Amino acid sequence: MMNILILSAGTRNKIVQYFKKALTTSSGERIGRVIATDMSNIAPSVYEADKFYQVPQMAADGYIEVIFDICKKEEISAILSLIDPELSLLAVHREEFSDLGVMVIGSDYNLCEMSLDKMKMYEWLTEHGYKTPKSYTDKELFYIDVEAGLINYPVFVKPVRGSASVAINKVYDKETVELLFAHGDNLMVQEYMDGQEIGADVYIDLVSEEIVSIFTKKKIAMRAGETDKSVSFKDEKLFALIEKLVEETGYRGQIDIDIFEIGGEYYVSEVNPRFGGGYPHAYECGCDHMKLIVENLYGNANQKNIGDYEEGIFMMKYNEIMMKKL
Amino acid sequence: MMNILILSAGTRNKIVQYFKKALTTSSGERIGRVIATDMSNIAPSVYEADKFYQVPQMAADGYIEVIFDICKKEEISAILSLIDPELSLLAVHREEFSDLGVMVIGSDYNLCEMSLDKMKMYEWLTEHGYKTPKSYTDKELFYIDVEAGLINYPVFVKPVRGSASVAINKVYDKETVELLFAHGDNLMVQEYMDGQEIGADVYIDLVSEEIVSIFTKKKIAMRAGETDKSVSFKDEKLFALIEKLVEETGYRGQIDIDIFEIGGEYYVSEVNPRFGGGYPHAYECGCDHMKLIVENLYGNANQKNIGDYEEGIFMMKYNEIMMKKL
Repeated sequence: MMNILILSAGTRNKIVQYFKKALTTSSGERIGRVIATDMSNIAPSVYEADKFYQVPQMAADGYIEVIFDICKKEEISAILSLIDPELSLLAVHREEFSDLGVMVIGSDYNLCEMSLDKMKMYEWLTEHGYKTPKSYTDKELFYIDVEAGLINYPVFVKPVRGSASVAINKVYDKETVELLFAHGDNLMVQEYMDGQEIGADVYIDLVSEEIVSIFTKKKIAMRAGETDKSVSFKDEKLFALIEKLVEETGYRGQIDIDIFEIGGEYYVSEVNPRFGGGYPHAYECGCDHMKLIVENLYGNANQKNIGDYEEGIFMMKYNEIMMKKL
Repeated sequence: MMNILILSAGTRNKIVQYFKKALTTSSGERIGRVIATDMSNIAPSVYEADKFYQVPQMAADGYIEVIFDICKKEEISAILSLIDPELSLLAVHREEFSDLGVMVIGSDYNLCEMSLDKMKMYEWLTEHGYKTPKSYTDKELFYIDVEAGLINYPVFVKPVRGSASVAINKVYDKETVELLFAHGDNLMVQEYMDGQEIGADVYIDLVSEEIVSIFTKKKIAMRAGETDKSVSFKDEKLFALIEKLVEETGYRGQIDIDIFEIGGEYYVSEVNPRFGGGYPHAYECGCDHMKLIVENLYGNANQKNIGDYEEGIFMMKYNEIMMKKL
């Protein structure tokens, strides 16, 4: 059996469903089970899984030992997490997981940490010649660039490490920048990109270490930092940019890239080295990365197959509900 | 046929599904159709309906004539909207709809307008002796009350007319209140309620004009102004408060009430005279208000049946997706 453990599964029911499908043969036979964890027992996705473990908070003492125990007990072959801070934790313990026969589906520690820190990411991207929104942790340097006409209001003021659009302010003047910095820690100023938001769902093969799948979509509507509506598209220039970025950074497994397009130029904004909340669009268009993962777990490399999907397919999210008496 | 027209259906797929069910007999025969409109053709709910009309924006010239035409063409029996600003529009045209044989499922114009305006609602509630969060459009009056110890920071600064938690700021000091008021129009200061958020889904019979169904839930998690997780509960004291409120205001049809509980006291915060985003919890617990509506359309009054559901049932939302080639 090829059992997969999904940590912090939360509300990602589709991810659990897709993995169950990838672990089912065409004749309906299950070749593996999907186990889910969450710190909450009202995380709906965990009730889609074959088995659910309620676990302590990630930061709690002994958390990783609890995860090791589940891996042993459930004979887990591969592990992945759906939340950012846990990606580094898995990367740090990659060897220990390996000793238990468990493959970590994810990138290495330094890349996970860089992806979490918007300033580190900004520095890496600019040093390597990628276009990216201008970013400042030092507001005085930002004011100098405003004076010099290198950046204009509005800008975003946001935490250097943050996700799900928590605490992001669109700011129109210096007075408000001052107020926010006076009231908050670890903030940065980021250029506001007035262009088309794009998302890329990418799989880098764990056996061949080659990029094998890219799906790109234009984002049409966002809600609480997640893509609510999007439409598939293709551009060879963008595919080439993503291939170069993956090669130069060294990401592995599933990643999700946020990009802006302004006047035909692509600006790389963020990389999340995990399945993003908008991944179901890619899957439903035929980019089944769960199948690629299962092939890798069997030791097989996947064929490179970039952009194998139809353009102009719209994805629209809506609410489904799960009821539970607890 | 008992055809129902749902305006601005948006992402409320469950509402469309539930109405279709209410219009299907136990032997599977359809006794009516569900028609949906939206200004967007990437509103997923419209593809659940029996028929979809893409319509102009609500504020556009000739909008209501477009809706009248659909009513005639589709032989509509009842109409309702799922967005706030459209509730007043339907109320204003109630007679014209009636002339077309169409019943408006909603409250009267003044109530719809009062529900939209947080200050008007506040004034009505306080004048009638209901506990409610303190509210101010005049910030100087707010500062006087702060000085007098009648209200404390943090407070919310929000638009007087607004929804879906758009542009709501939690504010910790006078400096920030000043800044927000200097930058925004039609803002108010509202007391921050540090208590349990509660939602009530209520149906007031359109034939008997009596309140016939109340479902109450504690909200556990919110996202973008919508309830993401909740748990059913009952309290006779709260049911009595809601019955009194409905009697004194005169709401009709489906309403959704936001309440806070602090130290055993209930504070009424808002009334939305429509199906709220969290209504599926009530439905799945057995409070089928669609069936009550259909009974009313047949001219039958429904039996009063307050609190006919189980306590301790949890609702958890997650994302389902719809794919469409357009």
